[in-house]
Amino acid sequence: MSDNDINSAILRRPVNIGLLGLGTVGGGTAEVLQRNSEEISRRAGRAIKIVAASVRDLNKKRSPVLKNVQLTLDSEEIVDNPDIDIVLELIGGTEDACKLVLRAIENGKHVVTANKALIALHGNEIFSAAQRKGVTVAFESAVAGGIPIIKAIREGLAGNKIQWLAGIINGTGNFILTEMRDKGRDFADVLSEAQALGYAEADPTFDVEGIDAAHKLTILASIAFGVPLQFEKVYTEGISTIEKVDVEYAGELGYRIKHLGIARRNENGLELRVHPTLIPHRRLIANVDGVMNAVLIRADAVGPTLYYGPGAGAEPTASAVVADLVDVVRALTSDPENRVPHLAFQPDAIQDIPVLAIDEVETAFYLRMQVQDQAGVLADITSIFADQGISIEAIVQKEEQDETGCVPLVMLSHKVVESSMAVAIEKIESLATVSGKIVKIRLETLG
Amino acid sequence: MSDNDINSAILRRPVNIGLLGLGTVGGGTAEVLQRNSEEISRRAGRAIKIVAASVRDLNKKRSPVLKNVQLTLDSEEIVDNPDIDIVLELIGGTEDACKLVLRAIENGKHVVTANKALIALHGNEIFSAAQRKGVTVAFESAVAGGIPIIKAIREGLAGNKIQWLAGIINGTGNFILTEMRDKGRDFADVLSEAQALGYAEADPTFDVEGIDAAHKLTILASIAFGVPLQFEKVYTEGISTIEKVDVEYAGELGYRIKHLGIARRNENGLELRVHPTLIPHRRLIANVDGVMNAVLIRADAVGPTLYYGPGAGAEPTASAVVADLVDVVRALTSDPENRVPHLAFQPDAIQDIPVLAIDEVETAFYLRMQVQDQAGVLADITSIFADQGISIEAIVQKEEQDETGCVPLVMLSHKVVESSMAVAIEKIESLATVSGKIVKIRLETLG
Repeated sequence: MSDNDINSAILRRPVNIGLLGLGTVGGGTAEVLQRNSEEISRRAGRAIKIVAASVRDLNKKRSPVLKNVQLTLDSEEIVDNPDIDIVLELIGGTEDACKLVLRAIENGKHVVTANKALIALHGNEIFSAAQRKGVTVAFESAVAGGIPIIKAIREGLAGNKIQWLAGIINGTGNFILTEMRDKGRDFADVLSEAQALGYAEADPTFDVEGIDAAHKLTILASIAFGVPLQFEKVYTEGISTIEKVDVEYAGELGYRIKHLGIARRNENGLELRVHPTLIPHRRLIANVDGVMNAVLIRADAVGPTLYYGPGAGAEPTASAVVADLVDVVRALTSDPENRVPHLAFQPDAIQDIPVLAIDEVETAFYLRMQVQDQAGVLADITSIFADQGISIEAIVQKEEQDETGCVPLVMLSHKVVESSMAVAIEKIESLATVSGKIVKIRLETLG
Repeated sequence: MSDNDINSAILRRPVNIGLLGLGTVGGGTAEVLQRNSEEISRRAGRAIKIVAASVRDLNKKRSPVLKNVQLTLDSEEIVDNPDIDIVLELIGGTEDACKLVLRAIENGKHVVTANKALIALHGNEIFSAAQRKGVTVAFESAVAGGIPIIKAIREGLAGNKIQWLAGIINGTGNFILTEMRDKGRDFADVLSEAQALGYAEADPTFDVEGIDAAHKLTILASIAFGVPLQFEKVYTEGISTIEKVDVEYAGELGYRIKHLGIARRNENGLELRVHPTLIPHRRLIANVDGVMNAVLIRADAVGPTLYYGPGAGAEPTASAVVADLVDVVRALTSDPENRVPHLAFQPDAIQDIPVLAIDEVETAFYLRMQVQDQAGVLADITSIFADQGISIEAIVQKEEQDETGCVPLVMLSHKVVESSMAVAIEKIESLATVSGKIVKIRLETLG
C-alpha cells in the first residue's frame, strides 16, 4: 500500500480510545461519546470508540454505555495496548498519572488529559517527550471545564500580544462567595453546605485556598505569554479569611469580591497571582455567579474578550475531553511540526520572563480597620499613606461601635506597589488609636 | 527533493498573503501582523507577510507598515499571482468578491475572508469549490468580530448536540438599545449620534433592520446544526420600531430589550430568527452593553457557554483574520480530508432540517396596548387570550391617560405559538375599548 492508501485506511476505521480511570469524568465521556456518536462522527469524519479502561474495581456496576469496553485493573495494559490510538488519562493525582502518560507517549500514543495538577507540575517534561515522539497531549478540560478556553487563547487569539487575563477558575470558591453575597452568610456556613451538595471536597483546601486555581492559572499564563509552566512561582491566597462584613462593604462601594487567578505582563516581568479581589460590579465578570467559571482576557489587537461556562461536572468536562479527542483525531495524519504547539508557542520559542514577587506587584486595595472614633485619627492615618506615596480613592466611616468604642473605617486606595502598602499598614497598625489587624483585599478595575 | 524536503522548505519560508481591498480591516491586519510579528511567528513557527494588495487608488497615502506591499488596481493579479499562498478577501460586497474568491480557489489558493454576506449568500458554492480543490476558506472574522466564536462552536463544542444559540451580533444595534435604556433616549436620536460617531453607516438599514445580524446568524446556525447556509429562510425584524416607553416598561418588569439572532433546534425543525427580544436582566447576556457582542450557546453536554468581545473595528476584526491566517498556515501541509470542515460537519454529512416559519415558532410575548380605563375591559381581553390557550404571566396597568382617556396596559404571556398570538391580537385590536395597534415584542428566558 502507498502512504496515501494507509492514511485512508486509518481514516476510515474508528479511533480507539483507552481510558485510564473510570470515575465521574470517564463515565461522562463514555455517555457523551455514545449519545452524540452521530453528531461527533458527522463532525470528525469517523467514529470515536472507547475500547478499554483501567478501573480499581472490576465488579462495580457500570453504566450500560460501557458494555463493550474491556475493563482491566492494570493501567499499563492500556498504555501498552497496540490497538489503542489515544490514551485518555483521568486517574488524577500526579505520580502514577505522569508515569503512565510518559509511557503512553513512549509508545507513540496521543494523550488527552483533564489533569490540571499533572500539566501544571509536569507539563514541561511531558510536552518535551511528546514533541520528541511527534505525538499530541491535549488538555482543554484541565482548565475551566467545558469552556474552550485553551483553544480560544492558543488559536483564537494567536494574532495578539496578550496583556493580562483574570479568571474565575474555581467553581467551589465562586459558589461560596456568591452565597456569602446573596444571602449574607458566613464562609464556614456556606462551605459546609457546599460540601453537603457535593460542590466542595471533604478536604476543601485545594479549592478554597486557591491551589486548584493556581494550577489552572499556571497553564493559562504559559499559553498566553509563551513562558514555561511554573506553578511554584504563583502567589496564592485563599478565600477562607473573607468575612461577610467585607463582602457587604464592598457591595456598598459598588464592588464584588471574586476569587481571581490573574496573570499580567508588565514592563518588569510577569505577575502570577491567585487571591480574593474586589472588582466593579458593572463588569460582566463580576456577574458570573454560583459554580460558573469565566476568563476575561485583555489582548492588544482584540481588546477584552470573555469566555463563560461551567467549570466542572461530568458532562461539561466530557465536552472538553471530546473536543480534544476530535482535535487529536484530526491530527493523526498531520505532520507533527505543523500542529498547534502544546503551549501555544513553538517549543524553541518559549521565553523565560521573570515572575515578580507579590511585594513588587502594583494593585489598588480595599482596607478595613477598627479605629477610635475621635478627632485626629484620620489625619494620622492619611499622613502615613501620604508618606508612602499612597493616594486614597474613598474613605467610609461606619457607625457600628464595637465593645472598645472603635468603629470600622473602610478605605479604597489607588494603585500602589504592595511593599509600600505593607509598610503603611504596619505603621497604621502600630497607632494607639487603631485596634487589631487591618483587613486588606486587592482591588482590580479590569478595565 | 523528497516530499519531506519540499515540506520543510515550504515550512521555513514566510507565508505570502495577497490582500483584496485595503480599507479599515486590511490596514488593521497589516498593522497587527507587523506589530506582533515576533509573537505570531513564535506561535505559527514561521513568518506571515502581506506581499501584495489590490486597491482603488494607487496614490492614496498609506501607513508605513505597508511600505513593502506591492499595490495594484487589478484584483485578478492578486488571485493569479503564483507567489501568493493565501488570499485575504476584504473588498466586501458579494458579486466581485465571489468571483475573485472562486478564482483564487481554482488557482489552488487558500482564502481568508471577513465577508459575512459573501459566506451567508454564496458559502455553499464557495465551500464545495474549496473542497474539490483541497483548500481552506476561513471566515472567523465574519461573525462577531474578534470573538473566536466560529472556532468555539466548530471545534470547542464538537462533542455536543447544540440545542440553541442566541447572539448579540450587531454592535450598532446594541449600542442604540443600550443608549435608549441608559439615557431614556429615542431610537432616532441615538441613531443620529451613532452615525456621527461612525458606529452606524449613513444607510443604517443593514444594521438596524437586522440584515447584518441575519447574515451572521445564517453562518452560526449552519456550523451549530450541520445545515446548509440558508439566509433566505431567516425571519428578520429590526429595532427601528422599538419605542423608549417599551424599553422602560421592560426594565420595570426586570427585563432588557436586546436585538438577538436566535437559532434553535426543536422537534419540528429549526428556528432562525432575528428580532428585538426581552430577556431577564440577570442573565449575563442582558448585561452586554454598547457596541460589544456576545453569543450564548446551550448545548447538551456542556450546558450554557457564553463568548463576549468586540464585534467590529479594525484591530478586533484583524485579530480574527490573523487567527485564521495562522490556522491556514498550519493546514498548508496537512491532508485536506482531515482538516476541520468548513461548516463544522463533513460536507457529506450536512443535513437539511426544515426551517420553521415564524408563525410556527413558540415564544413568550411582551404586549402593550392602549385601553379604556373602565370595568370589563380586562375581562374581555383575558377571555380572548384564554380562547387561544394563551396564559398570562403578568399584567400591569399604567396610570398615564392619553388624550382619549386610554391608559397603557402591559402584559407578559407565557410561551405560545406565534399564530395563536396573532389571532388573539387581531381580536383584541378589534375591541371598541382598545385603541390603535398592539405593540408586540418576543420574550425569551434563555434558561
